[in-house]
Amino acid sequence: MNHLTGTVRIVGAGLLGTSIGLALTKQGFDVVISSQSPKSVDLAVGYGAGRVATETDLPELIVVCVPPAMTAKIVADELARYPNAVVTDVASVKGSVLHELQASGAPLERYVGSHPMAGRERGGAISGRADLFVGRPWVITSHDGADERGIDLVADLASHLGSAVVRVGTKEHDRAVALVSHVPQLVSSLLASRLVTAAPEDIALAGQGLRDTTRIAASDPELWLQILEANADEVLPLLQSFAADLSSLISGFEVREPQAQIRSVMEAGNIGVGRIPGKHGGKHTNYAQVIVMVEDRPGELARLLTEVGEIGINLEELQLEHSPSAQIGLAELYVAPTEAERLTADLVARGWRIA
Amino acid sequence: MNHLTGTVRIVGAGLLGTSIGLALTKQGFDVVISSQSPKSVDLAVGYGAGRVATETDLPELIVVCVPPAMTAKIVADELARYPNAVVTDVASVKGSVLHELQASGAPLERYVGSHPMAGRERGGAISGRADLFVGRPWVITSHDGADERGIDLVADLASHLGSAVVRVGTKEHDRAVALVSHVPQLVSSLLASRLVTAAPEDIALAGQGLRDTTRIAASDPELWLQILEANADEVLPLLQSFAADLSSLISGFEVREPQAQIRSVMEAGNIGVGRIPGKHGGKHTNYAQVIVMVEDRPGELARLLTEVGEIGINLEELQLEHSPSAQIGLAELYVAPTEAERLTADLVARGWRIA
Repeated sequence: MNHLTGTVRIVGAGLLGTSIGLALTKQGFDVVISSQSPKSVDLAVGYGAGRVATETDLPELIVVCVPPAMTAKIVADELARYPNAVVTDVASVKGSVLHELQASGAPLERYVGSHPMAGRERGGAISGRADLFVGRPWVITSHDGADERGIDLVADLASHLGSAVVRVGTKEHDRAVALVSHVPQLVSSLLASRLVTAAPEDIALAGQGLRDTTRIAASDPELWLQILEANADEVLPLLQSFAADLSSLISGFEVREPQAQIRSVMEAGNIGVGRIPGKHGGKHTNYAQVIVMVEDRPGELARLLTEVGEIGINLEELQLEHSPSAQIGLAELYVAPTEAERLTADLVARGWRIA
Repeated sequence: MNHLTGTVRIVGAGLLGTSIGLALTKQGFDVVISSQSPKSVDLAVGYGAGRVATETDLPELIVVCVPPAMTAKIVADELARYPNAVVTDVASVKGSVLHELQASGAPLERYVGSHPMAGRERGGAISGRADLFVGRPWVITSHDGADERGIDLVADLASHLGSAVVRVGTKEHDRAVALVSHVPQLVSSLLASRLVTAAPEDIALAGQGLRDTTRIAASDPELWLQILEANADEVLPLLQSFAADLSSLISGFEVREPQAQIRSVMEAGNIGVGRIPGKHGGKHTNYAQVIVMVEDRPGELARLLTEVGEIGINLEELQLEHSPSAQIGLAELYVAPTEAERLTADLVARGWRIA
């Protein structure tokens, strides 16, 4: 394993570049920042994301954080300019960047494709934050002929940023992000588009469901245009299958017999959302849930969790639900399914009320 | 203004009935609970949502909280059985209930249509909470011939539950909820359906965007079947306009010239989401957030919360985020805004890492 010790050069001082710089600088790395926009560099440097790049920098690792359509060109430039550095990028689509680089004849031993699965609806240095990558997957898509040193350095970078490294093939990556990111983006935007001409008093009834489903519709059109164009081959079949299911649903409504189609869509939705790993909204399908009533006063939850620790069971996830006005909160404990029965029994024996 | 002072009878002890009972009982109201399911009544009464209904109750207000398809029949029964009581319901579609009641010849002076805009993906008494309605709109859809007394009582009920009363016509209500609730539900389910046959390693790259857009896909198919059937006339044209825009987008991808369509969809999405009042994506807007890094081993979270208790600050909400593979979890602590600075400083002094 080759560890990152030298200077890190960041090209592009937007959300991702600035966030990487902030996190690395905090950990004592020498970070230099370069961008076509002097204003962005000023802002990122002012934020504490690093120092202004100079002619004499000798970076060990270069992270290209420019818009997707410019990525391959800048990566090639950096590979040529710094013949000893490893170069990675953060573009959301990996196949198009790799193919363009291969076509350009750039020396790709020192190139590593990255895709940190983190972002925000708002871009720009001003939105940068050191914890942007914490707990998020950092995808590394290596290609034939890539040096192990480069892969090690990028994996070490990801670890320093708090990300979990996931290695997948370029093609598999692009297929996956079409499913989990690109099509959801378009669907969210199409849904939010219904609101453009709606009456304000209708929109005023919006609840959390509409807010959640349309949150990412606030994303930057120019950035997404580049992403979606670059991944069109993977996005299209998913849109087509969505359209086919929608068309079947509409047919049911048109003949005033939508029952079977509604049930089919809702049930498939239940199954689909249940396959998303990790926490969220009660679909912790990989864990067993134990709900404990906790009095709403300082220290009670800590006492519960201390006792869970004494029982020797690791919490996979935890959520606390209550309102300022409630006398009782519900702690939802998620544990390995094999542990749930023992946890419940031991908690009851210790006097806890299980909901 | 007629104020609510007498007994409130709740028919149906699911999520909404139990939550209404919890909130009213807390405020000292006499609440009686009736349901076809004795087990639900037991659970709701055990939670503190009221007492078991008896033959001699004389309710001033009756709240019918049964599934949409049963609502009109139960409302008519209650109007007949309690000739002095005002009867309201909480069904998500108002036109179908009103028309069925009008056709039945029930005495509708004492009926008031309600729709509290609150819910959760998980139903049942077990999910009930006294604060479910706080800050949410409570729609009252009065019809010609409705007594003012009834409208006043229901408005007073909504106020006691912390809701803001919104009065709209029946038809306007159904049009609005098709837009802000019913079509988003179907779109979310259709999107989550893409995951049914996807490779687990693809789904593993899911981020917050997919989680948010598919959260409500976990909703109950049987309940939604009733809602969507009852509001089919308003849902259909919105699905058709969504399908037309999707079809245009797909055409662009098919001829490998999707730029104009992508830009159009993204820009319309920006405009649409910008029309939703209030903040997006932050449901904890009343609290300050402090994010603490917690090592992923038994007892660490308990130690953190013990120390938060020692510092003497009450947690309003708490969420833990981490993946099974990560070495570090993020505990998101939500506290009163005035406490955040002291909490952060004290935690840092005790050696905790704040993200």
